[in-house]
Amino acid sequence: MQLTATGPTLGVVGGGQLGRMLAEAASPLGVSLVVLDPTPECPAYPVAREQIVGSFDDEEGIRALGERSDALTFEIELADPDVMERIAEDAGVPVQPSPDTLRLIQDKLVQKRALADAGIAVPEFRAVGSPEELRDALSELGTPAMVKARRGGYDGRGNLPIEGPDDAGGVLADLGTDAMVEAFVPFVRELSVIGVKGRDELRTYVAGENVHEEEILRETVVPARTSDEVRERAQGVAREVLSLMDGRGTYGIELFETEAGEILVNEIAPRPHNSGHWTIEGARTSQFENHVRAVLGLPLGPTEVQKTTVSANLLGDAPSREARLSGVADVLAEPNAHLHWYGKREVRDLRKMGHVTVTGEEGEDDRGTLLETARSCRERLEFEP
Amino acid sequence: MQLTATGPTLGVVGGGQLGRMLAEAASPLGVSLVVLDPTPECPAYPVAREQIVGSFDDEEGIRALGERSDALTFEIELADPDVMERIAEDAGVPVQPSPDTLRLIQDKLVQKRALADAGIAVPEFRAVGSPEELRDALSELGTPAMVKARRGGYDGRGNLPIEGPDDAGGVLADLGTDAMVEAFVPFVRELSVIGVKGRDELRTYVAGENVHEEEILRETVVPARTSDEVRERAQGVAREVLSLMDGRGTYGIELFETEAGEILVNEIAPRPHNSGHWTIEGARTSQFENHVRAVLGLPLGPTEVQKTTVSANLLGDAPSREARLSGVADVLAEPNAHLHWYGKREVRDLRKMGHVTVTGEEGEDDRGTLLETARSCRERLEFEP
Repeated sequence: MQLTATGPTLGVVGGGQLGRMLAEAASPLGVSLVVLDPTPECPAYPVAREQIVGSFDDEEGIRALGERSDALTFEIELADPDVMERIAEDAGVPVQPSPDTLRLIQDKLVQKRALADAGIAVPEFRAVGSPEELRDALSELGTPAMVKARRGGYDGRGNLPIEGPDDAGGVLADLGTDAMVEAFVPFVRELSVIGVKGRDELRTYVAGENVHEEEILRETVVPARTSDEVRERAQGVAREVLSLMDGRGTYGIELFETEAGEILVNEIAPRPHNSGHWTIEGARTSQFENHVRAVLGLPLGPTEVQKTTVSANLLGDAPSREARLSGVADVLAEPNAHLHWYGKREVRDLRKMGHVTVTGEEGEDDRGTLLETARSCRERLEFEP
Repeated sequence: MQLTATGPTLGVVGGGQLGRMLAEAASPLGVSLVVLDPTPECPAYPVAREQIVGSFDDEEGIRALGERSDALTFEIELADPDVMERIAEDAGVPVQPSPDTLRLIQDKLVQKRALADAGIAVPEFRAVGSPEELRDALSELGTPAMVKARRGGYDGRGNLPIEGPDDAGGVLADLGTDAMVEAFVPFVRELSVIGVKGRDELRTYVAGENVHEEEILRETVVPARTSDEVRERAQGVAREVLSLMDGRGTYGIELFETEAGEILVNEIAPRPHNSGHWTIEGARTSQFENHVRAVLGLPLGPTEVQKTTVSANLLGDAPSREARLSGVADVLAEPNAHLHWYGKREVRDLRKMGHVTVTGEEGEDDRGTLLETARSCRERLEFEP
C-alpha cells in the first residue's frame, strides 16, 4: 500500500456504530471511510468522509460507493453479496470479506452445515420447511430448542426459543418456513473469540465471556472466567473456523462452553463484533483497526490482551423518542471507565446506544470488581424522558 | 453535559493534524467537530462533521463556526482572539482556552514577562525594537542568543539564532522590529510537559525528552531520561504555568533542563502539542481527549503514563510535490509501532506529514531500544519521487 494525500478510501456498507468505530480506527492509518446507510446522519456520518444515503442492497448506492473507494467491505451482514460482487467487478475494487463468505454466513443453515462438515462441533440441528418437519425435528432433538430463521436475523431477532412441543405451531408462522432448529445446549458459559483473517495470517484475541439477556449481549468479561485450557480450546476452535472462511477481515465467533469444557460454535459474524469492543482499550490493536488492515491486505497488528477488561452495553430503555443521556460527567470521572456514545438520534427499547469499557491493572484478577464498576457506570447513565 | 443524538459539536479554528487527532479522540465521547481551515480537504476534513474553508482570522468563517457549535476552541495559535471573543459573545458559545490566554501566549514577550513576574524561571530576555536595542541587549546577555519575533511564530519559524554580535544587523530585517532576544541557556536536555487545565482541576503528564534539529521536533522519549527529581520538578513548573493561565484546555510546555538540574520555561502552546502525541498510546487518556473534556467542562481523564513510549515525527524531505509514502506495510508489521498519517496532499521540506509511536513493556527501561526502533521505522518510510 502507498499512502497518498487522502489515503486509501474504504467503502463500507452500513454506517452504524461499527462503521463509526471503524472510522475512528482507520483515521490514524490514513484511511478514510465512505459509508452507505439508509439513515441520514447515521452514527458513522460525523467521522466518515462521506455518507451515501441508501439501503444495504441499493444497487445504485453500492455502485456510488465502489466508484469512490479503493476497497469495499460491510459492517452489517444484511449487505447484498450479489450486488457487491457485481459492482466490485465493474469498478475493479476488491470486496472483503469475500461475497462467498458473506453468502455462507448469511444463511444460518448453510453456515452450520459448513462447520459440521469440517468437523467443528456445533449444536445438533435440522432444516425445517414446514410445521410437520419442525415437529419431527423436535421429537429427535427434544425441547427446549431454538428455531432460527435461515436469513435476515440480527441481534437475536429471527431466533425464537421453543419450550415444549406445543409451541411448535406458532413459531413458523412468525419466522417463516425457511428455518432451522437447534438442540438446546446446556452451556455453563457463553464465550466469544474475535478472530482476524489477513492476507497470509490468522490472529485471534483471547476468549471473552458474554452475558446475554433476552438474546442481547449485556456485558463481556475479558479474559473469560474459565480455565486456561478452555480459553485456549476456544481460540483453537476459532482458528479452525477462520481457516474455513475465504474472506479477509475481522470475525466474531460466538461459542458455548459445556459443563465438560467442550466448545461448540453457536454463530459467526463476518465483521467486527459487539463482544470485541473491549479490544479498543484492552488490546494493542483493536478489532476495528485489524479489520481495516485485513481488508486492505496490510499486516495485522498484535492481538494480545493488555489488561483485564469489561465492557457493558448501554441499551435503550423506552419506546421511540429523542435520545438525551444524562450522568455522563459522572462516568467520565470514573478513572478506569471509557465511554463510547454512538450518536443515534432516537432511543428505542433495547437499541444499542453506546457502551462503557472498564479496564483493570496488568497482572491482577479484578474482573469481578470491573464487572461491578461497569454495571454501576451504566446505571448512572440515564435516558431523559 | 447531556449527550444528544449528534452529541455536542466542537468548533475548531484550524484543521491540521491536531484537529484530525482531536476528531479521532472526540468521536467515542459522542462529540463531533466542525473545523475552519483555509486548505480545502484539510487533514481533519475526513473525520470532521464539516469543514468551513476560510483563514484562521476570517470573521465570516468563525461566525459560521460559532453558529454550528456548542463550544469553540483552536488548534493553532494563529487563531484571532478578538474575532473569536466577539463571535462567541454574539453566538452565546464559550471559547476555551479563553481569548485572554491566547493573547497572552501569542505575544512571546508578554508571555515571558507574565512567567517572570510570577517567579517562574525563564531564560534572560529583553524586548528589542531597533538594531541599537538589539546590540545593547546582546552586550548584556552575550552571544549566542535567540532572537524571536513577538508574534506569528510557529514550529521554529520566527526564531533566529545569533552566533556573535556581528549577526545582529540582518536579523531584525528578517524578523521585523517587534521582537525580543533571549540569552542562550546551556541546557543538557529539552523537556516538555503536557498539562491540562479543567474546570476545577489541573493535571500533568510525565515529562518527555525532546530531540530537536533545525528548531523542529524530531523525537520525544517518555519518560524523559533524567532523574525522578528533575522530572518531578518539571511537572511542578508546568503546574505553576497552568495556574497562571485562565483558559481551559491542553497546553504544551517546553522546558530546558540545565546541568545543575534547574528547569526553565522555554515556550508555551495553548493547545495539544507535538511532544504529546505519545499520550495516544502511552497514557490512559490522550492529550486530545483531555482537551475535548477540558473545553467542554467535563471531568479530566487520568494522565498517568502506562508504558515507556517514543514518538518520531515523519517530516517532508523534498520540495513541494504530491505526497506518496511507501514502506507502510513494513512499519505496520513492527509489533509495537503505531503509525499516524495526517493525510496532507503535498509533501514539503520539513513539513510534518505523520508520526510513528513505539511503545515498550510496562516496568522495563527500554527507551534506548524504542528510540532506535522508532528511527528505524521512520527510515523505512519513504516519500516517492
